[in-house]
Amino acid sequence: MIITLKKEAKPEQIKKLVHRFENMNLKVTVIYGENYNVFGLVGDTSKVDEKNIMANPIVANVQRVDEPYKLVNRKFHPEDTIVDVNGIKIGGKKLTMIAGPCSVEGKDQILRIAKEVKKCGADMLRGGAYKPRTSPYAFQGLGTQGILDLCQARKETGLPIVSELMATEHLQEFVENVDIIQIGARNMQNFDLLKAVGKTKKPILLKRGLANTINEWIMAAEYIMSEGNPNVIFCERGIRTFETMTRNTLDLAVIPIIKSKTHLPIIIDPSHAAGNWKLIESLSLASIAAGADGLIIEVHDNPECAWSDGDQSLKPEKYASLIQKGKKIAQVIGREL
Amino acid sequence: MIITLKKEAKPEQIKKLVHRFENMNLKVTVIYGENYNVFGLVGDTSKVDEKNIMANPIVANVQRVDEPYKLVNRKFHPEDTIVDVNGIKIGGKKLTMIAGPCSVEGKDQILRIAKEVKKCGADMLRGGAYKPRTSPYAFQGLGTQGILDLCQARKETGLPIVSELMATEHLQEFVENVDIIQIGARNMQNFDLLKAVGKTKKPILLKRGLANTINEWIMAAEYIMSEGNPNVIFCERGIRTFETMTRNTLDLAVIPIIKSKTHLPIIIDPSHAAGNWKLIESLSLASIAAGADGLIIEVHDNPECAWSDGDQSLKPEKYASLIQKGKKIAQVIGREL
Amino acid sequence: MIITLKKEAKPEQIKKLVHRFENMNLKVTVIYGENYNVFGLVGDTSKVDEKNIMANPIVANVQRVDEPYKLVNRKFHPEDTIVDVNGIKIGGKKLTMIAGPCSVEGKDQILRIAKEVKKCGADMLRGGAYKPRTSPYAFQGLGTQGILDLCQARKETGLPIVSELMATEHLQEFVENVDIIQIGARNMQNFDLLKAVGKTKKPILLKRGLANTINEWIMAAEYIMSEGNPNVIFCERGIRTFETMTRNTLDLAVIPIIKSKTHLPIIIDPSHAAGNWKLIESLSLASIAAGADGLIIEVHDNPECAWSDGDQSLKPEKYASLIQKGKKIAQVIGREL
Amino acid sequence: MIITLKKEAKPEQIKKLVHRFENMNLKVTVIYGENYNVFGLVGDTSKVDEKNIMANPIVANVQRVDEPYKLVNRKFHPEDTIVDVNGIKIGGKKLTMIAGPCSVEGKDQILRIAKEVKKCGADMLRGGAYKPRTSPYAFQGLGTQGILDLCQARKETGLPIVSELMATEHLQEFVENVDIIQIGARNMQNFDLLKAVGKTKKPILLKRGLANTINEWIMAAEYIMSEGNPNVIFCERGIRTFETMTRNTLDLAVIPIIKSKTHLPIIIDPSHAAGNWKLIESLSLASIAAGADGLIIEVHDNPECAWSDGDQSLKPEKYASLIQKGKKIAQVIGREL
Repeated sequence: MIITLKKEAKPEQIKKLVHRFENMNLKVTVIYGENYNVFGLVGDTSKVDEKNIMANPIVANVQRVDEPYKLVNRKFHPEDTIVDVNGIKIGGKKLTMIAGPCSVEGKDQILRIAKEVKKCGADMLRGGAYKPRTSPYAFQGLGTQGILDLCQARKETGLPIVSELMATEHLQEFVENVDIIQIGARNMQNFDLLKAVGKTKKPILLKRGLANTINEWIMAAEYIMSEGNPNVIFCERGIRTFETMTRNTLDLAVIPIIKSKTHLPIIIDPSHAAGNWKLIESLSLASIAAGADGLIIEVHDNPECAWSDGDQSLKPEKYASLIQKGKKIAQVIGREL
Repeated sequence: MIITLKKEAKPEQIKKLVHRFENMNLKVTVIYGENYNVFGLVGDTSKVDEKNIMANPIVANVQRVDEPYKLVNRKFHPEDTIVDVNGIKIGGKKLTMIAGPCSVEGKDQILRIAKEVKKCGADMLRGGAYKPRTSPYAFQGLGTQGILDLCQARKETGLPIVSELMATEHLQEFVENVDIIQIGARNMQNFDLLKAVGKTKKPILLKRGLANTINEWIMAAEYIMSEGNPNVIFCERGIRTFETMTRNTLDLAVIPIIKSKTHLPIIIDPSHAAGNWKLIESLSLASIAAGADGLIIEVHDNPECAWSDGDQSLKPEKYASLIQKGKKIAQVIGREL
Repeated sequence: MIITLKKEAKPEQIKKLVHRFENMNLKVTVIYGENYNVFGLVGDTSKVDEKNIMANPIVANVQRVDEPYKLVNRKFHPEDTIVDVNGIKIGGKKLTMIAGPCSVEGKDQILRIAKEVKKCGADMLRGGAYKPRTSPYAFQGLGTQGILDLCQARKETGLPIVSELMATEHLQEFVENVDIIQIGARNMQNFDLLKAVGKTKKPILLKRGLANTINEWIMAAEYIMSEGNPNVIFCERGIRTFETMTRNTLDLAVIPIIKSKTHLPIIIDPSHAAGNWKLIESLSLASIAAGADGLIIEVHDNPECAWSDGDQSLKPEKYASLIQKGKKIAQVIGREL
Repeated sequence: MIITLKKEAKPEQIKKLVHRFENMNLKVTVIYGENYNVFGLVGDTSKVDEKNIMANPIVANVQRVDEPYKLVNRKFHPEDTIVDVNGIKIGGKKLTMIAGPCSVEGKDQILRIAKEVKKCGADMLRGGAYKPRTSPYAFQGLGTQGILDLCQARKETGLPIVSELMATEHLQEFVENVDIIQIGARNMQNFDLLKAVGKTKKPILLKRGLANTINEWIMAAEYIMSEGNPNVIFCERGIRTFETMTRNTLDLAVIPIIKSKTHLPIIIDPSHAAGNWKLIESLSLASIAAGADGLIIEVHDNPECAWSDGDQSLKPEKYASLIQKGKKIAQVIGREL
């Protein structure tokens, strides 16, 4: 960490600040320049809060050179992490295709769609049982019944299941029944929830928040890993911008960035990014070409009657065609699907 | 709700859609135009999901005329709601001034600052005991001890206390000890937490999420009220934009908007918006002039040694001066402070 | 256009409004509903200003059903427009690869790089002679000399040249010398400049503004076409968001959107979107997979000594490798490169 | 400027970089640390391009300590600049109130409104003669006739006139006829236009771009001043964010920021920020309380028939009432209106 002091900083003020950092077990190199005095801090600066340093009236600027994350940092863990989900490897050569309806609407629906997406080539089944909805009057999910329906679908198709956990009180239910626990965009900085899932060993699909920076997202993964759970999978689903023609703006630059800064896999959710099924194929192929480790896509066999997110759901035949094209793109960049 | 159908919609498709709405207990008026067919839906459309309607291939556009919220809607509750906190009225003629440190750092610190802000003219004391921090390695708050220290400060100064609740597991502790429960920006759409505090009668300070629209914010209040708690206070704290010179961008247009659309009080947090103590006075006076029902401001007697948010904390003497100026502005617009 | 009136609208007010629209040559269908009165306007509504209608106190909502653009609208021109640049077709089966330095720095530099990118497989040469720079003290481009150097490079390599026009006073120089005139992001709504280039027949590369919606971008193309120039090529270069790890956020959803709403070609500029050469390959392959008609990429043989944008410039060998991978992706989706 | 080098930087690479900076007349202090090598650059770094330095593979980070602007910098010009417009001082104790219609619609209209706003207490008249419109089919302004009508209104009321210049070809007309030349938000980075108005001595009202940072805005003022024109007035008019309930988000933190970083006056345009006349009064009073040097507000005597921006125009009686309240707020903070 490099701290630039104002010219007017007095020796006793500088001394006091040096002392403070030394108390934090940091080695301080002070450089007295003609126009600048600069501190170089060496040691574990992950606990240093830039904003507090900036509160000191003699400080002109603070520049973090080392990243504030350790466990997810590729620097200290150069090889790729591969997350194993019932034998399916996320983050290896083969991409992972997750598909299913926004909401579980009943056993028949989820079974029917599970079979359809399996036939198309999906590796896992998604389906919401607890739904984060903007309105308290909107359908809130089937809850436990939805989880049980997903389990039944897994039993009949063999597809591992992915579902969103919204509150720690349902954690046990998820640990027992679900194969990947999804942390939704609105909960990306629900730190108690992150800590709770960090105490399990379940694979966690960590969606990026609507307006969270890449750094904040990485720190959320660090929260989970710092509690002992190494099985974190990033999931980009678009960020909120001024553009209203799409639901969100999909940020594909995160793929090479996450892969260079961390050792964890990253999959893409084009459905929530686009909010419109017509855009899904283009964005899916783009994601594969950019190096994503998988895709999670909303598929429904009757979108116009879906209980939620109908406008962004693909019909199975479209999904099948997308997978066929995706296979070829994956091959070009040395992957499989 | 007005639904515009595409020209190519066939009579049987239209019929099917009419039928679907009628099953939702909505009265449908169909207008067959030369170039448009338009549906007017009458009834309780708060449960209708625009996105699902858009999934229907014959639908060109959906336009909500009625707001999707009822309990917070000024239309059905024309008079202002005044929230009573130990006898202090939030939302009446007198503005409510809340002040205190970002974090409770110990009994001495909170007592000292409580006395200082009381002397300056504050009505209530704020202080974080459970802290949402981007980094798992940053100070996470004193927890229960912090709450007890706040209680002690209340005992000695008489100031009601405001603190942030991050997880339902601490709800009981907050209900018993705290006077206003704050829902932080990152939890504005933590719907389980909203429902939980909705089941109490405690006053709730509902901060706007970093990237949440005014509509989503109002719906979060509706969540709380729909569970039975009428004591909701909005709190604007800046939204995330491209500008980096301030921590967030304070959106003061929300004051007249929230007051016209809802009957609930709204207070402003200039500290988190600005992220820099030098901007607080200007933004505070602006908020009062714009009609805010109160201000929540970070005050610390030693900001450069604060354990969090030092750079945005005012010193007590600056806070005292701000209150003096604020009093006069309030008077001009027929309020008191 | 569908206009919803407030319940309280009085017959004479409605009559007056009907009259006003009829004077604009619009046919008005009024639907008197129990809870809504709705106007359906038929005719050329491209001249109707929604904001003025909203100013009318009896109007609750305005919903545009028809797009406000005509000449660029695919509805009225279903086949793809192919822009011919000295025999190279932009928008056909074959993608167009444009490459070169941010700024022309002298004849030697541009000749050297032109030969390099040609060898790699580029179809056209880019280079800035007039540079939009945030600081008046930064290098502003070589001006006319830069244009002449580009012409020399074209003469020696045969590559058509693309350069940015910043002011109408240089239009004649560009018409005479340059093959594609670029309108930069900052000038996307410089309407006088749009009208001026619209009066020529030169191909125009229309970059999307930093914070412009897709609709505004399409309207900028409509400005050019409405003056008589049909040779417009859209160019996405990232939009400004809260994320600071990339220079801008590349919005690839625009590819299928622009292609469905307009008949014009669209190429992608990953260099300005990313602002970091390490991200270019991923974003380029993604763009091709998403259906882009071409790529414009900054290439420099000595980026660390470039006079501008060094950090986002690819070295020729990286560019060559990108083209090889791009060829295969293009093939998968039935294109060539 | 502080440049942090990567640990792996080799002595000869460091030497080469030192040499390069010395050639730019900068004095370089190199600090060889255990974990960091740091360069401190002293001299005129306003010409140094951070992005090019970042392109050097041995550079880890670049931190600008000195601002890249000089002429507008308060550091080198501590006293406030007061811009004199026909004897009216902008930036002094007295606030400047500018009002008028969005567009000049004819002599009668502008005369009528000029008299109205004068009666209410306005100091200057605004009116658009050349209009930046998203659609080529929307009313583009009366052009020269509009300017002449404004002159007539000035003659009859004595109010100086403010109008937007969109292209250098009309500069002479503006210099001769208009009292303040407005540079609109869409042209804030039209650098040729900035340079052109910088060559005159006319007061320039420089609106902030829709998505421009405060730094970019200050640099745009530096462009004007660097050509010799010291009469620059900043004008905040809201920035583009994800919120759609207002046209833009008014950023009032810019008032104390602009005043601390520069010596130039700043006025606020709440009309374009809000896009809704109902919000104007609150935002205007807030702006005054925050320390604005003036307000520019759209006033129309028949908003629902205005040719543009009707929904955001105040009627004269509302404007008169706003001025009365504003006077009292101004007094509280030691100003006049």
